[in-house]
Amino acid sequence: MKIKTAVIGAAGYTGGELLRLLLHHPQVEIKYIHSNSQNGKKIDEAHPDLIGESELVFTDQVYTEDLDAVFLCLPHGKTKPFLESHRFSDDTVLIDLSTDFRNESNGFVYGLPEVNKSKIGHSKKIANPGCFATGIQLALAPAIASGLPANNPIHITGITGSTGAGKQLSETTHFSNRTGNVSVYKLFTHQHLKEIRQTFGQLEEEFSNELLFVPYRGNFSRGIWITAYFPFTGDLADVYKLYEDFYAEAPFTHVSRRDIDMKQAVNTNKCIIHLKVEAGQLIVYAAIDNLLKGASGQAVQNLNLAFGLEEHTGLALKSIAF
Amino acid sequence: MKIKTAVIGAAGYTGGELLRLLLHHPQVEIKYIHSNSQNGKKIDEAHPDLIGESELVFTDQVYTEDLDAVFLCLPHGKTKPFLESHRFSDDTVLIDLSTDFRNESNGFVYGLPEVNKSKIGHSKKIANPGCFATGIQLALAPAIASGLPANNPIHITGITGSTGAGKQLSETTHFSNRTGNVSVYKLFTHQHLKEIRQTFGQLEEEFSNELLFVPYRGNFSRGIWITAYFPFTGDLADVYKLYEDFYAEAPFTHVSRRDIDMKQAVNTNKCIIHLKVEAGQLIVYAAIDNLLKGASGQAVQNLNLAFGLEEHTGLALKSIAF
Amino acid sequence: MKIKTAVIGAAGYTGGELLRLLLHHPQVEIKYIHSNSQNGKKIDEAHPDLIGESELVFTDQVYTEDLDAVFLCLPHGKTKPFLESHRFSDDTVLIDLSTDFRNESNGFVYGLPEVNKSKIGHSKKIANPGCFATGIQLALAPAIASGLPANNPIHITGITGSTGAGKQLSETTHFSNRTGNVSVYKLFTHQHLKEIRQTFGQLEEEFSNELLFVPYRGNFSRGIWITAYFPFTGDLADVYKLYEDFYAEAPFTHVSRRDIDMKQAVNTNKCIIHLKVEAGQLIVYAAIDNLLKGASGQAVQNLNLAFGLEEHTGLALKSIAF
Amino acid sequence: MKIKTAVIGAAGYTGGELLRLLLHHPQVEIKYIHSNSQNGKKIDEAHPDLIGESELVFTDQVYTEDLDAVFLCLPHGKTKPFLESHRFSDDTVLIDLSTDFRNESNGFVYGLPEVNKSKIGHSKKIANPGCFATGIQLALAPAIASGLPANNPIHITGITGSTGAGKQLSETTHFSNRTGNVSVYKLFTHQHLKEIRQTFGQLEEEFSNELLFVPYRGNFSRGIWITAYFPFTGDLADVYKLYEDFYAEAPFTHVSRRDIDMKQAVNTNKCIIHLKVEAGQLIVYAAIDNLLKGASGQAVQNLNLAFGLEEHTGLALKSIAF
Repeated sequence: MKIKTAVIGAAGYTGGELLRLLLHHPQVEIKYIHSNSQNGKKIDEAHPDLIGESELVFTDQVYTEDLDAVFLCLPHGKTKPFLESHRFSDDTVLIDLSTDFRNESNGFVYGLPEVNKSKIGHSKKIANPGCFATGIQLALAPAIASGLPANNPIHITGITGSTGAGKQLSETTHFSNRTGNVSVYKLFTHQHLKEIRQTFGQLEEEFSNELLFVPYRGNFSRGIWITAYFPFTGDLADVYKLYEDFYAEAPFTHVSRRDIDMKQAVNTNKCIIHLKVEAGQLIVYAAIDNLLKGASGQAVQNLNLAFGLEEHTGLALKSIAF
Repeated sequence: MKIKTAVIGAAGYTGGELLRLLLHHPQVEIKYIHSNSQNGKKIDEAHPDLIGESELVFTDQVYTEDLDAVFLCLPHGKTKPFLESHRFSDDTVLIDLSTDFRNESNGFVYGLPEVNKSKIGHSKKIANPGCFATGIQLALAPAIASGLPANNPIHITGITGSTGAGKQLSETTHFSNRTGNVSVYKLFTHQHLKEIRQTFGQLEEEFSNELLFVPYRGNFSRGIWITAYFPFTGDLADVYKLYEDFYAEAPFTHVSRRDIDMKQAVNTNKCIIHLKVEAGQLIVYAAIDNLLKGASGQAVQNLNLAFGLEEHTGLALKSIAF
Repeated sequence: MKIKTAVIGAAGYTGGELLRLLLHHPQVEIKYIHSNSQNGKKIDEAHPDLIGESELVFTDQVYTEDLDAVFLCLPHGKTKPFLESHRFSDDTVLIDLSTDFRNESNGFVYGLPEVNKSKIGHSKKIANPGCFATGIQLALAPAIASGLPANNPIHITGITGSTGAGKQLSETTHFSNRTGNVSVYKLFTHQHLKEIRQTFGQLEEEFSNELLFVPYRGNFSRGIWITAYFPFTGDLADVYKLYEDFYAEAPFTHVSRRDIDMKQAVNTNKCIIHLKVEAGQLIVYAAIDNLLKGASGQAVQNLNLAFGLEEHTGLALKSIAF
Repeated sequence: MKIKTAVIGAAGYTGGELLRLLLHHPQVEIKYIHSNSQNGKKIDEAHPDLIGESELVFTDQVYTEDLDAVFLCLPHGKTKPFLESHRFSDDTVLIDLSTDFRNESNGFVYGLPEVNKSKIGHSKKIANPGCFATGIQLALAPAIASGLPANNPIHITGITGSTGAGKQLSETTHFSNRTGNVSVYKLFTHQHLKEIRQTFGQLEEEFSNELLFVPYRGNFSRGIWITAYFPFTGDLADVYKLYEDFYAEAPFTHVSRRDIDMKQAVNTNKCIIHLKVEAGQLIVYAAIDNLLKGASGQAVQNLNLAFGLEEHTGLALKSIAF
């Protein structure tokens, strides 16, 4: 008996990435793929790399019956009205990839398995985290939970691939502009800081530290790199132990004792973390794929948890490595 | 009962890519991974993206007993002497990724499944094709087998990613040189032309056409693009039918009626083909990943054939798409 | 006494590149810069790299008086109606970067200095060649003028940077699509073939050879690479002599006896050419910068010729090299 | 009367970039170009983009007579012994691009014109700054000189192109590794911090702030991006005024009131700076070309100062822009 799923908003980057995963997921059956713009087209017209994998056809209709799980890949701000006008059964698991319910409103649980695994396993409504938010939370969660930063500000830089900006055309994703280039955006004001603070507040009630986050546009298509640091006087070995213990049950989040680079995580659902102590600071590096662990891969991981499947199911992905 | 395998020369690009595939292959057990340079090191010291996936340790010893299949990922010219000094059982399937036996000497069969599937299925010795050779043969095999090019020269350009040049350092793979750059190498003399002519001679006994092949170094890491054309006066619809029929049983080679680009095939074992008739020529485009369908993916496909497994086993790979 | 110039359509890629050149040109004074979209904005709002170089402000007005030279950087098809509604003095040199007058209609001369230098020097109306057209003509002109290809088809591939597609947003210039990718467009039907045939017909009256041109989209922003070949039984040394003699007076077109790559020409007004004889073919490689020798640099070269200046004036540009 | 110069170590990246500039410098005559590895070869064998520009031939001999200026482009640590074994006239201006004399030992002056212009103008020995050091100092000098950071730590990230790592081959400049990738190196310990602290100590005697510098390897060949910030309670307009005043006489360092990206400075000698106040911090962005303002361009600027030439001489470079 497979899990009957639908993907709403299946023509964009996160929707497409979900389809790539679900088509190979051994426990999933895709009942329909929804898109307003691609209605009537075959799946590989919008996602031509899927040639030969499926005969699914996009529909602009929303069928609410007979579904075990629905993935919502709508633009930010659109899921809430969508769910108001389309009522799924209370038994249907909803996994929302937008920001709409990341504040855990309307009964949604924040879907970061490394922190919320058991809640996710018992939930029918899961708000999938943002990409930068995933990288930053995984980089810092063990430290926050242990109160390591005390009251110090935490300094964070993140570099994201162009797919983070979505499929629509824009100046900053024009190839001629972006190739060989670097720039900063939303300096210290990135919208993901909100969900990050929420989680950190759950991990450490008193958490009120400044989070100074500099987000960069990188000239690559996939991947997120995070560097985070704060003052620290302890021992690196203890921090490694802390992180390894914290992630002992996390099948995708790996603590590397060797230096890392971003591509090690690209095209996988992994988060790879490395730690350093230098100049009186504890420094954490984290690498993820923004579309996988940062979006659609984590959504499948949440599906697995919600249905009691092994977390790796359908997520044994091959890195591009080089 | 899993297939007991070993990978000889497992620290390079094709060896590493094989490990990435074999670790997720449901029917394979890796008995050991061999490397002269990495002896004693854990698998993820050479291939850090594999963190968390395996505890295997490289050895510089070659164990010849109790193996169902051995993958040989040695430099070109090194497999032959290696097999002379290391005798595997006659029951062990040997899959060689070097050029050494692509001339089908010493009982080896040329491992291009789209052309040689039944021979591969009955063989214990498989010479895995070259990357450009795979792309060019798949682009042209149906046309050659039907005699379409008559006596005309066939014009071919190919553009390859930097991983085709291997892991060793060189001027032409120095990032500062290669990024934003294009150049040609081995003009009209690429070594893969030999195995291509051999296959075409098997498909069409009289085959003696000129093959004018311009190989380009592209500024990307993975992928091969092939454009091939020759004079043609027939009907495009007939050629589509010809190609679709030829590849009807080929699970990875897809004929697309829509225009294609290279990335559709990158990080998969697919070959995607598109056809055109223009200016009195039949034109064929083909896209593959040089390390997968052009090397390690095809090697696993050959393993599957040799052991009677479904060809997709362990090869349901997610494209990077963008 | 400086040459008083204006640039019509100065907000796009070729217009902007012209401004970068003209601002450093010792004999030029820019009277005004025209743009419908940027009216009232300072030059470095549209071209922020020009910060600190000029206080010019865009205007959407067209002043036709008191100008020695006007550069027309309008979209293809727009120059003709523009000149019908705006009458410049007969003494004003018009240099048009669009396709509108490349057929040498309305008294325009085709502005390829290597072929038409003296005509350009006596002309007031110059149609600046297309980017691919420049590369292909320079690659082949000496051979065509000497009748080397006889009646044989000529096979040409060209790879262009993304700036060739202009500033407007499009799917094929979306960074996420284009990076790490390759594709073909306008196969055998590229619009530049027209002006190429025209020039070749002027060089060799009987010229009627097939030109089979495969244009590629490359994943870099600047540069064009051309490979062209045809059957040939002569001696390479003779062809080198032929090319070197043909380009003896061409200050930007260099024949290299060593192998070349594309970046050697990027960000310069050079065309670098290399020759080979292999497999019974004469092969020519040519590298240019599509925005310079392929557009705005050549426009300045034409200005220099029209005003009797040394051709290098304002064009001693530093390559990026790496 | 031209300035008679020599370039010692002219085959590497900074040496080559110097040659590109000096060949177009109207007041410079290159007497010889020195290289141990390229002895006897023409200039365009090592720097093929220079085809057609010069007939200079490399020599491994060092001629110390009859030179107005010598550029030393030797590896770090090699200039000092070189100058001990080769004595140039006391009248010869020495411009060293290595780290050897950046501590202003042996009578060398630190060659950052924005800070040391008059000293450079009176010096015969100039130690050219490091690339990251240039970017970071220009980003912060006005603030430091005004004591804005008080005692607060200053947080800095820098992203550098691959040419910063030089011409030699290495794992981290292998195209297959670096493309689409990001990593950190020399965290908080970069060697340029030394010269930065020295300058800041000259600007503000009491300077003893922590400088926490995270250097990134970017996947582009040229350019450096700097983000620096520290706590600040003042007014952004005042800081703009401060910076604009500080750089009023600096012909290459521009303060942009509009947001910036790195490519605006690439292939020019500019440093482009942008300021923000956000979250109680003053943030400075700075963009330079690591090989120009960060090395060879600044060396020419220093030559101009040492010989009383206008600073722009030979440095009116065209940006690549896109």
